[in-house]
Amino acid sequence: VIERTLTHLTWTDIRDLEKEKGVLLLPVGAIEQHGPHLPVATDTLLVTNILKRALQLLPQEVAAWRLPALSYGKSNEHEAFPGTISLSGETFLAVLKDIARSVARAGFRRLAFVNGHGGNSALLEVAARDIRAETGLMVFCVQPAFWIEPPFKLSEEEKQYGIHAGELETSLVLALQPGIVKMDKAVKHYMKPPMPLFGSVSVAWLTPDWSETGVFGDATAANPDKGIALLDYASQRLAEIISKISHFEVGNG
Amino acid sequence: VIERTLTHLTWTDIRDLEKEKGVLLLPVGAIEQHGPHLPVATDTLLVTNILKRALQLLPQEVAAWRLPALSYGKSNEHEAFPGTISLSGETFLAVLKDIARSVARAGFRRLAFVNGHGGNSALLEVAARDIRAETGLMVFCVQPAFWIEPPFKLSEEEKQYGIHAGELETSLVLALQPGIVKMDKAVKHYMKPPMPLFGSVSVAWLTPDWSETGVFGDATAANPDKGIALLDYASQRLAEIISKISHFEVGNG
Amino acid sequence: VIERTLTHLTWTDIRDLEKEKGVLLLPVGAIEQHGPHLPVATDTLLVTNILKRALQLLPQEVAAWRLPALSYGKSNEHEAFPGTISLSGETFLAVLKDIARSVARAGFRRLAFVNGHGGNSALLEVAARDIRAETGLMVFCVQPAFWIEPPFKLSEEEKQYGIHAGELETSLVLALQPGIVKMDKAVKHYMKPPMPLFGSVSVAWLTPDWSETGVFGDATAANPDKGIALLDYASQRLAEIISKISHFEVGNG
Amino acid sequence: VIERTLTHLTWTDIRDLEKEKGVLLLPVGAIEQHGPHLPVATDTLLVTNILKRALQLLPQEVAAWRLPALSYGKSNEHEAFPGTISLSGETFLAVLKDIARSVARAGFRRLAFVNGHGGNSALLEVAARDIRAETGLMVFCVQPAFWIEPPFKLSEEEKQYGIHAGELETSLVLALQPGIVKMDKAVKHYMKPPMPLFGSVSVAWLTPDWSETGVFGDATAANPDKGIALLDYASQRLAEIISKISHFEVGNG
Amino acid sequence: VIERTLTHLTWTDIRDLEKEKGVLLLPVGAIEQHGPHLPVATDTLLVTNILKRALQLLPQEVAAWRLPALSYGKSNEHEAFPGTISLSGETFLAVLKDIARSVARAGFRRLAFVNGHGGNSALLEVAARDIRAETGLMVFCVQPAFWIEPPFKLSEEEKQYGIHAGELETSLVLALQPGIVKMDKAVKHYMKPPMPLFGSVSVAWLTPDWSETGVFGDATAANPDKGIALLDYASQRLAEIISKISHFEVGNG
Amino acid sequence: VIERTLTHLTWTDIRDLEKEKGVLLLPVGAIEQHGPHLPVATDTLLVTNILKRALQLLPQEVAAWRLPALSYGKSNEHEAFPGTISLSGETFLAVLKDIARSVARAGFRRLAFVNGHGGNSALLEVAARDIRAETGLMVFCVQPAFWIEPPFKLSEEEKQYGIHAGELETSLVLALQPGIVKMDKAVKHYMKPPMPLFGSVSVAWLTPDWSETGVFGDATAANPDKGIALLDYASQRLAEIISKISHFEVGNG
Repeated sequence: VIERTLTHLTWTDIRDLEKEKGVLLLPVGAIEQHGPHLPVATDTLLVTNILKRALQLLPQEVAAWRLPALSYGKSNEHEAFPGTISLSGETFLAVLKDIARSVARAGFRRLAFVNGHGGNSALLEVAARDIRAETGLMVFCVQPAFWIEPPFKLSEEEKQYGIHAGELETSLVLALQPGIVKMDKAVKHYMKPPMPLFGSVSVAWLTPDWSETGVFGDATAANPDKGIALLDYASQRLAEIISKISHFEVGNG
Repeated sequence: VIERTLTHLTWTDIRDLEKEKGVLLLPVGAIEQHGPHLPVATDTLLVTNILKRALQLLPQEVAAWRLPALSYGKSNEHEAFPGTISLSGETFLAVLKDIARSVARAGFRRLAFVNGHGGNSALLEVAARDIRAETGLMVFCVQPAFWIEPPFKLSEEEKQYGIHAGELETSLVLALQPGIVKMDKAVKHYMKPPMPLFGSVSVAWLTPDWSETGVFGDATAANPDKGIALLDYASQRLAEIISKISHFEVGNG
Repeated sequence: VIERTLTHLTWTDIRDLEKEKGVLLLPVGAIEQHGPHLPVATDTLLVTNILKRALQLLPQEVAAWRLPALSYGKSNEHEAFPGTISLSGETFLAVLKDIARSVARAGFRRLAFVNGHGGNSALLEVAARDIRAETGLMVFCVQPAFWIEPPFKLSEEEKQYGIHAGELETSLVLALQPGIVKMDKAVKHYMKPPMPLFGSVSVAWLTPDWSETGVFGDATAANPDKGIALLDYASQRLAEIISKISHFEVGNG
Repeated sequence: VIERTLTHLTWTDIRDLEKEKGVLLLPVGAIEQHGPHLPVATDTLLVTNILKRALQLLPQEVAAWRLPALSYGKSNEHEAFPGTISLSGETFLAVLKDIARSVARAGFRRLAFVNGHGGNSALLEVAARDIRAETGLMVFCVQPAFWIEPPFKLSEEEKQYGIHAGELETSLVLALQPGIVKMDKAVKHYMKPPMPLFGSVSVAWLTPDWSETGVFGDATAANPDKGIALLDYASQRLAEIISKISHFEVGNG
Repeated sequence: VIERTLTHLTWTDIRDLEKEKGVLLLPVGAIEQHGPHLPVATDTLLVTNILKRALQLLPQEVAAWRLPALSYGKSNEHEAFPGTISLSGETFLAVLKDIARSVARAGFRRLAFVNGHGGNSALLEVAARDIRAETGLMVFCVQPAFWIEPPFKLSEEEKQYGIHAGELETSLVLALQPGIVKMDKAVKHYMKPPMPLFGSVSVAWLTPDWSETGVFGDATAANPDKGIALLDYASQRLAEIISKISHFEVGNG
Repeated sequence: VIERTLTHLTWTDIRDLEKEKGVLLLPVGAIEQHGPHLPVATDTLLVTNILKRALQLLPQEVAAWRLPALSYGKSNEHEAFPGTISLSGETFLAVLKDIARSVARAGFRRLAFVNGHGGNSALLEVAARDIRAETGLMVFCVQPAFWIEPPFKLSEEEKQYGIHAGELETSLVLALQPGIVKMDKAVKHYMKPPMPLFGSVSVAWLTPDWSETGVFGDATAANPDKGIALLDYASQRLAEIISKISHFEVGNG
C-alpha cells in the first residue's frame, strides 16, 4: 500500500519519489465559530477527513500525497465570536508562499490547496497564481463548493442561504464526530440580505452584520445519515479531482 | 446638476456633503496585454467609461461620487507580455486599504470597488472585508461580470472561453475609441483547458500557459455596433447597481 | 502622428518599439485639500494637463510616451481635511517600485516621474535611486518646481510663502477648468513660520500646524490669464526637459 | 470528563469558559528532514503526542486546553534536504502574533507555546515577549529540552552531540508509530564542531555544514522501550508544567 | 555643567527632566566609500564631532541632549564599493520611526535629526512628517548642507561639483583625525553631468555612473587648517540652530 | 600596528584586505533603563568598551576588525521606563540582515555579533542563521553571558537573580565611567519568580512584572575594583573567542 502522508516519509524517500507526475495536497481549514452547536474546528475537521477518505479511494497508480493541514485560516468575518482564531490576509498569503517555495525546492511540480473554508478562497486563488509565477509550480485550488450538490434533497432556501453551520456542515460533523455536536442548541436562521454576499455584485460582510448566532442555514434539519451520504459523495468527488490533477499539464488545451 | 466627480469638489464641499446616504465609487482597472489588436489600457478604459455613463443615468436623488481610477491593478498573469504593468498582490492590497482609511476618516459610510479586470477580483474581495472589519465602512465589489450577458447573441464558445480580449472587450473599445483598435491583427483563439481556470476546482494560470497571442476568445467577431449596445446595457445595469448600493444598510436582511 | 500614450498601444506594438532611446513618463499627482476654493484633484489635474500639452509640443523625433497617472500620492500633511486621500509612504514606495519593475521587464531604459505634488518629492527621489540600483533603469525626477518662475510678476511674499493653493495653482485651474474653482471662497493666507518648512534646516509640518483653511498663499490674486501664460510656459519647459531626458545616457559627464 | 481540545467546543462554550485561571496550549512542530530513517513530520508528531498524553494525566481541576498544532515551523537549517517545509522567520512570527491576538480577544489570560523543534525556540521567545507587551497575555514557552533527561542511561557523546534524529527522537517515534521508522537506514553520526552550535558563543549552522545524512547522534541505539519510557517521563513532566502554568500570575515573585 | 548625553542619564533622571522645552538630537551618519583617501566612516565621524562641539557651545539654559548616532544610513548609491554598509530605505525608515516612538513615549516633545549624509536626506524628511503625524512630536531635519558656506574661498567648481569626498570633507577629517586620511591617494575628480543630480529636474545616480574613484570634488585642495576653520564655523552654526529648535513651537507663524 | 576599526579604512584598503581569514565584529548594545543608578546606555557602553580592550589584546596575526556599534537594540521589556529606546523585533532583524548583505557583498567571509544585551540574543541567533542561509557568510553570536563567571566571588542569589543592573553591570560602569553612576540611588532587588524567566520552561516578562525600580540584583554590592577585574577578565576572554572565530571554517567537525 502506498504511503500517502508525505510527511511520514523520510527525506531520502522524498528525494527519490518520481515527481514528473504527482501532486501534493495541502488541506486548508479554519478555526472559527460555527454556531452554538458545532465546534470551532468544523472546517478543519471536515476538510482533513474528506481528504483522508478520498485518498483511500484512489487507485494505486495515482501519485498524490497529503501535507499537514493548515488548521488556521483567514476568518476575520467571525472574529467577534470567541473561539475564532484568524490569520490576517497578509500572514495567510505569506504562509502559503513559504510552503510552496519549500515544495518547489524539493522538486515537486504540482501543489493543490484543498480548502474547507469559503473565507480562504480568494486568497488561495491569489496565492496560487503568485506561486505559479514565482516558482513554476502548477497550482490547483479545490474550493469547498466542490461537494455542494448533496446526494439528498435540500430545500431551496438551504441551497441559497445555508452557507455556514447549516444542514450540510452539521450533518457532516454528526457523521464524523457526533459527540462534539450540540443538537439541542441547533438553530435555523436564514439571513436574506437585499444584496448578494458573493458574486459579481456583493457587499462585504462580517457575521454580526447578518446573524446573531453565527448560523446561516437550518442546522435543525441535519442528521448523521445525511452526513454519511454527503461524506461518501464528497470523498468520491475529491478522489476524481485528485486523479485528474495528479497528471495534469498546463498548455495542453 | 450634481457634481459626481468627488475630486472636483473642495475640501469644504466634501466636509459638508450629507454622508448618511451615498457611496464613493472607485474604478479599478489594469494595464495589461489585450492581444495584438487592443490597447494595454483596455480594462481601465472600459471601466472608467462605463462608470461615467452610468453616473449620467443616475437620478438626481441618488448620492454617488466617483473617485479617480486605479489604473494599475494586479496583472501578473500577463507579465510575460511587454506593456503589462502590474502591482504585486501585497502592494495592491495596501493601496486599497490606504485609500479606504482616508475615505473613512472623511466620514463616508460606503465605498464600492467598480472593477474592470478579473485578475483584481479576489484581492478586492479580501480588501473589502478587511476594510469593513477595520474601519466599519460598508464596502461593495462590482466585478467585471456584472455586464456579462450582452444584448446580442454570443456563441456558446465565446460565452465559455471568451474571457480576455475577445468579442465583447473588442466591441467595447471599438465603440469607445476605434482609432486605437487594430482589427487587422485581431485573432480568434479558443483555449479549452482540460480543467477550469475558475470556479470550485481550478488551475492557476499565466497567459503563456494557454495563449501565444494573449487572446482568449474571438476578437474577429467584434464590431462597434455590438460595442455600443453593450455599453448602453452595461451602463444602465451599473446605474441600477449604484442606486441600490447608495442607500444600502447592513443588517436589514 | 506619434501615439504618445503608451497604453493606447498593443503589447506587440510595445514589444516592437525602438527602446535604445526614449523615456516613459509617469505623472504623479495627489488627491488632497487645496483650500476652500480649489478641487482636491488639483495636483493630479495640473500635472496630467501640463504633461499632455508638453507632449504635443515635442518634435516627432523625440521618443517619449506617457503612462497613466498615479492620481493618489502621499499627502498625510493634509489628512486632517476631508477629501484628502493619501497612500502611506511605504505603500507609495512599493507602487513606484512595482511599476518600474514592469517597465524594466518590458525592455525600456528610461523612466521619469513627472510630479505635481511637493509631498511626493522625497519618496520619488528615494524610489528613483532604488529602482536604478535594482533594475538598471535610468530614472528621472521632474519635481513640481520645474515651472516655479512664472512669466508674470509674483509678489515677494507669494514667491516665498505661496506654496499651496495660492496664486499659481489657482490661476492654473482657472485656466484649465474654471467651473470647478470657487473664487468667492478664495482667501489669502501667508503663514510665516519662524523656521523654514523646507531646506537644510526645517521643521516637519502638517497643514493644521500653519493654516486653518489649507491655503498657503494668495488665491485672490489668481486669474485665468495668468493660468494660461503659466500653462504655456510650463508645458514648453517640460517639453524641453523631456527632449533632453529622452536620449540621456549616464556616465557621459 | 473535561474536553481539553478547545476547538471541539462551540463559540458559546468558549465564551462561557471560566478564564481567570486556565491556559491555552499551542503545539508548535516542524516538517523537516530527520535523517534517512525518520519521517519529516517527527517534531510535529512528537510534540502533539506528548501533549495529548500530558493532558490525559492532568487532574480535572487544572484548566488547560490544547489548540490545533502549527505543523510547519522555522526549519531553514534543513532546507537543503527535500521534504523540509519551512516558514521564514518573519512569517512564523506573524503567525504566532495573529493567533495570540485572537486568543486575547476571546478573553483568555494565558497562552503557552509547547515546542517540539529547537529551530523554533528563539522566535517563540521573541513572540512571547512581544505578545505580552502588545496584548497583556501571560505567555509561556515550553521548549523541547523540557524532557532532556531521559529515564535511562545516555552515553556522554549522545548527551552532548545527539541533538537531531538521534537516540531519543528515534526511540520516541519507534514507540509511537514504528511503521514509519526505517531502522535499516539508521546511522550514527557525531558531529563535533570546534565551536559550540548553541550557547553564549556559537556559530550559525545549516545542517549540510556538519552532516551529510541529516543525523546528529546515534540513531542505531534507539529502541521502542526507550521510547515508551521517555514518552511516559516527558508526558508526566509536561503535565506538571501545565498544572503550574495554568494558574500562574506574574508579579508574585 | 549639564549632561547633554541623554543616555548617560538614568531612567529616573530622564523621567524627571523638564520636557516642555528641549530637544533630542539624533546624529545620523553613513558608512560608505569616501574615495581612496578618506575612511568609510567619514559621514558618521563628521556629524558626531560637529554635534559634540556644538553642544559645548550651547548656553546652559538651552535644553538639548544628544542621542547615540545611527552610524549606518542609506548608502546604496555607493554599494558597488567595498566597505559601504547600507540599510535599505524601508529598514532605515522603520528604524527612525521606532526610535521616535520611544522618544514620544518618554514624554519628549521635540526630536531633531542631525544628518551627515546627503543620501539620507529624503527619507529623513519623510520620516519626520510621518512621525509628526503619528506621535505629535515636533520633528526637525538638519541636513548636511547647513554648513555649506565655508569660512574660506572655494572654487566655483568645488562649490558646484564638490559633493562627496572633496575639499570640505577631506579638510574636516584632516582636522579631526589626520591619521586616518591618506592624502597621497587624494584625487581631483569633477564629474559634470549634462543633467543635475539634485533639484527640480534630476537623474537618479549611483556612484559608478559618474566616478571611478568614488570622489566628486578636489580632495587635493584640502588641508587641516581649512578643516579647523570649517569645524568651528559648522559647530557654531549648529549651536545656533539647536538653540532655536529647542524652544520652537509649531503654529506661531 | 594594525587598524582594527574597519571603518577607519578607505574603500580601497577594504577591497585589498586579505579576507580568506578574518572576522568582522559588530557590537550590539541597547538603550534601556538600568535602574535609578546606571545610565540607559549601559549595555552599549559595556560591549563597545570590552570589545575595544579585547582588540588591543589580540596578537597581530589575528585578522579581526570592529564595525560601528548598533547602539539601539530590542528592549521592549523595559519600554515602560522613560529613556528606553527600542527597535521592534522586525526592524532589528531587518537591520542585521541589511548590514550582513553589505558585508557579504564586500567579500568578507565571517561576521560576529558581539552582544551586550540579553533581550537581543534570540533575534541575533535567528538573524545569524538566516544570514548564513542567504549569503553563505559564517556568522557567530557572542552573547553577553560569555563573561558570566567573574574573577571574584558572587553570592548565590546574585548569580541566579542578578540579571540586570546588579553587582556586575554596576561594577563595570563604575570602572569605566564612574561619573555617570549614582551609587546613592543603587538598590538591591531580588525578584524570585515562581517560574524561570529563561530556559526550557519560561514565562515571557516585561520589567514592570517583576521590578519597580528596573533593577534585578544587588547594585549596592558593586565597586570599581570588581569592575576592573571583570573588565580584564572579559576582555581577555573575548580576545580568545575572536582569535578562534577569526579562522574558523564550518565543516571541520
